[in-house]
Amino acid sequence: MGAAHVRTLSTLVSGAEVTRVYDLDPDRAAAVAVTAGASPAPSESAVIESPDVDAVVIAAPDPLHAELTLACLKRGLPVLCEKPLATNAEDARQILEAEAATGRTLVQVGFMRRFDPGYLGMRRALTDGDIGEPRLLHCVHRNPSAHPTATSDGIVRNSMVHELDVARWLLGEEIVSIEVRSPHRGEGLVDPQLATLEMASGVLVSIEVFVNAGYGYDVRSELVGTAGTVSLEPPVLTSMRQAGRDAETVAPNFVARFGEAYRAQLAAWVDAAAAGRVAGATAWDGYVAGLVADAGVASLRTGERVPVELPAKP
Amino acid sequence: MGAAHVRTLSTLVSGAEVTRVYDLDPDRAAAVAVTAGASPAPSESAVIESPDVDAVVIAAPDPLHAELTLACLKRGLPVLCEKPLATNAEDARQILEAEAATGRTLVQVGFMRRFDPGYLGMRRALTDGDIGEPRLLHCVHRNPSAHPTATSDGIVRNSMVHELDVARWLLGEEIVSIEVRSPHRGEGLVDPQLATLEMASGVLVSIEVFVNAGYGYDVRSELVGTAGTVSLEPPVLTSMRQAGRDAETVAPNFVARFGEAYRAQLAAWVDAAAAGRVAGATAWDGYVAGLVADAGVASLRTGERVPVELPAKP
Amino acid sequence: MGAAHVRTLSTLVSGAEVTRVYDLDPDRAAAVAVTAGASPAPSESAVIESPDVDAVVIAAPDPLHAELTLACLKRGLPVLCEKPLATNAEDARQILEAEAATGRTLVQVGFMRRFDPGYLGMRRALTDGDIGEPRLLHCVHRNPSAHPTATSDGIVRNSMVHELDVARWLLGEEIVSIEVRSPHRGEGLVDPQLATLEMASGVLVSIEVFVNAGYGYDVRSELVGTAGTVSLEPPVLTSMRQAGRDAETVAPNFVARFGEAYRAQLAAWVDAAAAGRVAGATAWDGYVAGLVADAGVASLRTGERVPVELPAKP
Amino acid sequence: MGAAHVRTLSTLVSGAEVTRVYDLDPDRAAAVAVTAGASPAPSESAVIESPDVDAVVIAAPDPLHAELTLACLKRGLPVLCEKPLATNAEDARQILEAEAATGRTLVQVGFMRRFDPGYLGMRRALTDGDIGEPRLLHCVHRNPSAHPTATSDGIVRNSMVHELDVARWLLGEEIVSIEVRSPHRGEGLVDPQLATLEMASGVLVSIEVFVNAGYGYDVRSELVGTAGTVSLEPPVLTSMRQAGRDAETVAPNFVARFGEAYRAQLAAWVDAAAAGRVAGATAWDGYVAGLVADAGVASLRTGERVPVELPAKP
Repeated sequence: MGAAHVRTLSTLVSGAEVTRVYDLDPDRAAAVAVTAGASPAPSESAVIESPDVDAVVIAAPDPLHAELTLACLKRGLPVLCEKPLATNAEDARQILEAEAATGRTLVQVGFMRRFDPGYLGMRRALTDGDIGEPRLLHCVHRNPSAHPTATSDGIVRNSMVHELDVARWLLGEEIVSIEVRSPHRGEGLVDPQLATLEMASGVLVSIEVFVNAGYGYDVRSELVGTAGTVSLEPPVLTSMRQAGRDAETVAPNFVARFGEAYRAQLAAWVDAAAAGRVAGATAWDGYVAGLVADAGVASLRTGERVPVELPAKP
Repeated sequence: MGAAHVRTLSTLVSGAEVTRVYDLDPDRAAAVAVTAGASPAPSESAVIESPDVDAVVIAAPDPLHAELTLACLKRGLPVLCEKPLATNAEDARQILEAEAATGRTLVQVGFMRRFDPGYLGMRRALTDGDIGEPRLLHCVHRNPSAHPTATSDGIVRNSMVHELDVARWLLGEEIVSIEVRSPHRGEGLVDPQLATLEMASGVLVSIEVFVNAGYGYDVRSELVGTAGTVSLEPPVLTSMRQAGRDAETVAPNFVARFGEAYRAQLAAWVDAAAAGRVAGATAWDGYVAGLVADAGVASLRTGERVPVELPAKP
Repeated sequence: MGAAHVRTLSTLVSGAEVTRVYDLDPDRAAAVAVTAGASPAPSESAVIESPDVDAVVIAAPDPLHAELTLACLKRGLPVLCEKPLATNAEDARQILEAEAATGRTLVQVGFMRRFDPGYLGMRRALTDGDIGEPRLLHCVHRNPSAHPTATSDGIVRNSMVHELDVARWLLGEEIVSIEVRSPHRGEGLVDPQLATLEMASGVLVSIEVFVNAGYGYDVRSELVGTAGTVSLEPPVLTSMRQAGRDAETVAPNFVARFGEAYRAQLAAWVDAAAAGRVAGATAWDGYVAGLVADAGVASLRTGERVPVELPAKP
Repeated sequence: MGAAHVRTLSTLVSGAEVTRVYDLDPDRAAAVAVTAGASPAPSESAVIESPDVDAVVIAAPDPLHAELTLACLKRGLPVLCEKPLATNAEDARQILEAEAATGRTLVQVGFMRRFDPGYLGMRRALTDGDIGEPRLLHCVHRNPSAHPTATSDGIVRNSMVHELDVARWLLGEEIVSIEVRSPHRGEGLVDPQLATLEMASGVLVSIEVFVNAGYGYDVRSELVGTAGTVSLEPPVLTSMRQAGRDAETVAPNFVARFGEAYRAQLAAWVDAAAAGRVAGATAWDGYVAGLVADAGVASLRTGERVPVELPAKP
């Protein structure tokens, strides 16, 4: 993911230059850095403290997100942190406080779907009044196969969390409860998962997450309003008629599906960071997504509906 | 509905003749009868007892279904009864017993989707192994607008009940629990409704029913398996590109959407009745659908998941 | 084809009874007859002269169409003759004259697309003014593989002829010239063929016919007007997502694609014949289609545009 | 178009900097220049002769293309020239010779569709053997409404010319004849136009160009091979179900449809120019497209097929 961000920043985004690259594997850091005319750095802190670094993209393993974000905040640097912002609510809370202490808005969380032209089209359909008042949102998130390290909780925290943020962002309101169930029986990865969210206004959200769906990477969504519905359409370039079928290709992975969203997110972040703002999901959004994911994990274990209680926004 | 059945039987189905027609409104009965070369009957019992009646289609108001079906069973006549078989479990139970007492299988319930070429294609995809083992089923049922007499419970009993039967028929197993929720707040029709079913094997089913969806009559379904998914496609004859849009027409009502299913159901029933069998949903299927709908109504009131317990099949 | 018509007439069409069946192969005739409660006949004339025959469907080999139609006209019987009406203009002309001599309209030609719900939807879009004034019509006709007896001329006369009739019927005007070309080089079947028709008003029609298209039976059409376009959509029941593809099944043959058109044609013909009329393409339409096909064959040989000159309609 | 190129170059393309901008309207030049951190130039030659200009994008009115390209060649500068390369064959021929005289490949013509992901997908389907040997190519090019200055010849030279280049590039062979006809009668713009191309191998290409199609900007293409077909799918982000319709939005203009193609073209050109190459259509491609367009204009006037004769490639 980090390498992809470097490539996007250095080839498709103006207004920023990649100057330092760190990776646990120094050869990899060097290889990536050279493609962007940047220098490899010997450590994370060497990046964060480098005088030619004005802003930082964090695409490290999840458990390092909070620590690195805090280090950036300490130096007053704008950060684009891949989701999740932190692996527990306490760490996320600390980031909120550390950011508040700077008196600035420095942290953006990488919920890139907020920049996807399709999701933006859905939201515009809603705000333009094309579909009336929202009543239901249906979400489907499928991966071709689970990463070998995938866990049942991780499906909630890493995959479903995108849908949790989409629900909040698209509907413009908070989640008040979550219920996560699965047809899975016995040992092994609890997959697929079927969640129902209740929003503050009563709107209900159904979410399927299936990380071993087999056939491809497929993200679908339909927002149902009182006057009509709007659906996300998967990107399709060509169709082929062959051997009794008329077929379209399904995106193989998230890069193929959300490449433009990642680019637009980086471009918006670069401009926003230069102006002292953020352009997408804030630390608060990352914190709330994490709280709802915690509730989702709890629900997955019991099968019961779990209320989500948010503290006051700092 | 009765008039539509008469027209279908007399023009598109071979092997049967419409001989008697009854309607509460004698003028209407006469008008319908004449189109089919049949005679109007002065009462329901005049139909059932007529010597030139070998089988009966019941499309009366719901509260009369059980009584009329029992009257037909008494005379040993094959019956195609529009769903619901009865408006309460006790009446449906009586029908089961009355039919068992005849020693024959005489009652078919009008769950016509079992005859829809699209649903049959979905089931074939499953039984042919095209999508692997089933895990989830998503169902959407939308009407353009609620009938003036619609009630919140009636949405479960009259609309959602189709999805309940589809789930049992498609997956070939029983429903063990149902949960029905709604984004609706305050007074008035509790619509849309979002239900989750759990099947005996663990497979989960999500169901949206929205009787005031506004834009048209739209029934969708996607069955998700371990090796792929199969989706119902709405029937489309033409598309039109005009004024910045590329648009397909949505069916205005169930007749436009399920006309072929109704025809195929009647044709199969006529052949089956002549052979002393039924060709689709049995009285047991109608009884079970009613029990699950009862549980759904209970869930709608409390928002809690309600288990479904089936008695032994007689 | 004959067997299919018998099955449709005896199971899906009211108002008619199949009484006599003739086939060159008496066993086949007997087998088909029994399914419809009919008797096999020892010869074509035995059918035509049978006292219990009121109307005749001709689905014999093409070279017999004219002779059999004339025999029916002699007895004053309504005829539904599969296209082509005749294999040469002279024979078709004789039929026109023989029919005129009866003072009645007895001959209907089996251009079943006029009864296809999709084509009817296209025509309605035009007549309702939805797409403005017509300017272009694009037609595609593909078969999975050529019949072993297929000839280059036969592609024009048997396949393209459907498109010729569609153009006349849809646009409501005559064809004034035809040009037929092919990418084929060297020996063998001249396939695919690309034709351009000019209509009396100037409207141009592009036609692809490809009888060895391989992948399935696929008929497409788009009518382009000054205010929009209307396109035929192929019938699709389900879609399947599997192995990186989202695919719909293409119809394997014309029965799967046009079954409803064949049924509706027979039903309309039965009603019309009973009323002393025809309900679709007339003998004149069959004659004109043949004349245009003759011009198409001439064009195919030279590659040049060939004008179509119609005699006065009798 | 020039302003769009400046914006794309300065925000979405790395490896190049916009330094000078010229426009006939100095205020406009200044306004565009400022967005890119560039300086306005007082004349075309001031751009071409500027020491901080290493390569030039020409998006001037068509009649200036040849003259400006020649001026760039004189200075040995790489050029990306919007199509057409020249407004007559003689001027294009001069460019070919001037470029040959430099001993380098400096001229790229802006046939951006060669960089569109959809067209690239079509070509890959062909080169991967997915559809067998090509036989036919169908192309449709529709604009919502003609530019007020549009002429009948201009439709061939400015719109159809894209399809001419696509046919050559996609099929990898030359056009040997062109025929252009129209349903238009009487005075006014001869629109729509229906062309048929014959390629060297015999493959036939049908082209519709309709600049007053009304409903939107719509470019379609289907390549028909011996084993299947591949079709361009228009980009769609969302679909909306409303008021009896299930509708997708049609792109309003070429920027919405081909934005990514323009970006990719500029990015590839920048990299290629830095390496002393071109990355898309060459001056020869621009010259040939112009020759075929000349033949198309001749055909439009007579309605007859016009052979295309290419001189030897220099």
